[in-house]
Amino acid sequence: MIYLDNSATTPMHPEVIDVMTDVMKKIFGNPSSLHGLGAKAERLVEQARQVTARMLGCTPQEIFFTSGGTEANNLAIKGTLDRIHGRGKHIITTKVEHPSVYEVYEQLKKRGWRVTYLSVDSLGRVNPDEVEKAVDDETVLVSVMHVNNEVGTIQPIGEIGKRLAKYPKVLFHVDAVQSFAKLPLLPARAHIDLLSISAHKIHGPKGIGALYVRKNLSLEPLLVGGGQEKGLRSGTEYVPGIAGLAKAIVLAEQKRTEFLRNSQRWKKAFLERLDGKLSPMIVNGDISPEGCAPYILSLSFPGIKSEVLVHALEEEGIYVSSKSACSSKAEIPSRVLKAMGRTDEEAIGSIRISMGFQTTAEEMERCADVLLRVIPRLQKVMKVHKG
Amino acid sequence: MIYLDNSATTPMHPEVIDVMTDVMKKIFGNPSSLHGLGAKAERLVEQARQVTARMLGCTPQEIFFTSGGTEANNLAIKGTLDRIHGRGKHIITTKVEHPSVYEVYEQLKKRGWRVTYLSVDSLGRVNPDEVEKAVDDETVLVSVMHVNNEVGTIQPIGEIGKRLAKYPKVLFHVDAVQSFAKLPLLPARAHIDLLSISAHKIHGPKGIGALYVRKNLSLEPLLVGGGQEKGLRSGTEYVPGIAGLAKAIVLAEQKRTEFLRNSQRWKKAFLERLDGKLSPMIVNGDISPEGCAPYILSLSFPGIKSEVLVHALEEEGIYVSSKSACSSKAEIPSRVLKAMGRTDEEAIGSIRISMGFQTTAEEMERCADVLLRVIPRLQKVMKVHKG
Ligand SMILES: Cc1ncc(COP(=O)(O)O)c(C=O)c1O
Ligand SMILES: Cc1ncc(COP(=O)(O)O)c(C=O)c1O
Repeated sequence: MIYLDNSATTPMHPEVIDVMTDVMKKIFGNPSSLHGLGAKAERLVEQARQVTARMLGCTPQEIFFTSGGTEANNLAIKGTLDRIHGRGKHIITTKVEHPSVYEVYEQLKKRGWRVTYLSVDSLGRVNPDEVEKAVDDETVLVSVMHVNNEVGTIQPIGEIGKRLAKYPKVLFHVDAVQSFAKLPLLPARAHIDLLSISAHKIHGPKGIGALYVRKNLSLEPLLVGGGQEKGLRSGTEYVPGIAGLAKAIVLAEQKRTEFLRNSQRWKKAFLERLDGKLSPMIVNGDISPEGCAPYILSLSFPGIKSEVLVHALEEEGIYVSSKSACSSKAEIPSRVLKAMGRTDEEAIGSIRISMGFQTTAEEMERCADVLLRVIPRLQKVMKVHKG
Repeated sequence: MIYLDNSATTPMHPEVIDVMTDVMKKIFGNPSSLHGLGAKAERLVEQARQVTARMLGCTPQEIFFTSGGTEANNLAIKGTLDRIHGRGKHIITTKVEHPSVYEVYEQLKKRGWRVTYLSVDSLGRVNPDEVEKAVDDETVLVSVMHVNNEVGTIQPIGEIGKRLAKYPKVLFHVDAVQSFAKLPLLPARAHIDLLSISAHKIHGPKGIGALYVRKNLSLEPLLVGGGQEKGLRSGTEYVPGIAGLAKAIVLAEQKRTEFLRNSQRWKKAFLERLDGKLSPMIVNGDISPEGCAPYILSLSFPGIKSEVLVHALEEEGIYVSSKSACSSKAEIPSRVLKAMGRTDEEAIGSIRISMGFQTTAEEMERCADVLLRVIPRLQKVMKVHKG
């Protein structure tokens, strides 16, 4: 089996599973309990908070655990707006956000907020000038993702942060789910106020994530109750998952340099292997090392439905994605690819190949070879005229 | 170690840990992915939904997985009110709810909702007549818990449901976190519209729970995004946790009859052992088999702070709780015990002893013997005059 759908979710590190099994067996206390078993669980949570903070170059007090990236995004946006109600009614995001940001803005639009959806260029990049131009007196929040989950394009977060820092009333939220613990991004340095992460994209457990909330920033909780996470996120802590996230971060620290170097090299080799041999074929997004996460690669084969392609590759033991996992089941052209100027046909015929820490050069080579064999066959079936 | 804080959280069944470890190793796909690894994960989620539905005598379509009981409660209440906005502005709950219900009502009160907090009698019981009397033309939602987490009192849910069924505009929400899979409660039969459960109270994993939502009822999601859980709860599914919840339910089905019989018997023996020997001592809540969950027992020792008592028992290897885990860290008298008419001193001097499937007769006997030894010593230290 060749698993190349790591942007949807990653196979867990065996070491993470071991840590979690151990915690499930031995440290079952409720961190809120007064006795020693509670304290033991709480210590574990606080250690994990330190590990997470270290990766983001922030203080542990700025880390709040959530049930995943989706909750972190929802909390960042709604928690902010619920607090500053009345101070302004304008919010800004991009046309290429993950649904857990995009749909929140859609929900808010229905509730009366004025929303600006920033366009992107053909590589999927937002222009920092346009972010600044969109800011007006009523603007209170801007959400821009770091790495796009469908095409891998890296947004100029540092540059956008610098511009927004001139407007102290405007908070800056970054969805870093696809980059966290892989590509460096320090919220303080980039003038980020809120930053979302998720464990299952870095070979950690599902059901756990975190939100970085800059010191002195106060959000309204989405989930109230027992007052956990300093009242920002109530609910008994998912202690084994929190420990698993920390372990995944530690492992990522060790592996990421090599991972980035390798995936960059393999992506290049992959594209060279296909070069000129498959047509029509479009590479979506930036492929320069500076502009794109090296571990994500999006290709369009106009005329072939991505669903058909995913299944054809699966028959060869290769698992890739039709755009993102979240939107893969609805047969509508990708909003992200459309925003980048792709036609419906191009957007419907896209696949995403995404690497994880376990990926090997051979797997990528084999994937390329299979595409070289399968695509022409499918193009024939689909009666597509070669360009 | 004698763990008698099972209402805070339970040690996990080894079989549940095994199932989860297995799923983490082998079924890591994202249920939203189009390929076979996604489908495999999705099948597991759907099987767990069936198991959960069977326990509640409902259809799988009525079960929605959440990150726990707290999220289920928040979603039930806010999700309902966000939809029916404008139809009415009055909501009803009790003075003895868990914070994950109580604090939501407090939050809503601040947002302009009119809230009735129903009183309870000295046993902690709500009067169904008073529930009905509180309903007016503007009432849209009533939340009453099944088993109280601090004292174990069972609310007359069936009777309340019957009364509320006469008001089709009024939705009935029940927090069944402390009773689920232990005491029988079928939402359809009790005219319940929304019912919350949590896995870690039944020897399952932390970080997973579910909300029963009656067919044809439509809620506004708290977490939007990828559209998981039919759009009601977005976020990549915590697949191993969902499988773990299902396994815990299956095990509870096998064990609960014996558990209820035993805990009833042991509670009785426990109280007989203490009878007349410790004074002042108050048994909080109902202790009749019909009125109280047999696995929960709350005692007050006025004059001794519960924190002191918890630590004194811990030194003997016995883990109990000062009221509920969630509120144990703040040194304020329990809101629940106060609602039952206890004085501050009585409310501050309470401990909760709660049994789990692993509890034995010997453990309960030893706990009683330790109390018989420790309480008089502490009372002496605290200079409390014996009655
Ligand atoms: C960019 C991005 N943001 C947010 C999420 C949501 O995270 P989670 O799956 O933990 O809810 C994902 C993945 O699904 C993602 O790719
Ligand atoms: C009655 C009751 N409701 C809700 C909850 C919250 O559930 P969870 O811990 O899964 O968030 C608890 C336990 O903490 C509880 O006892």
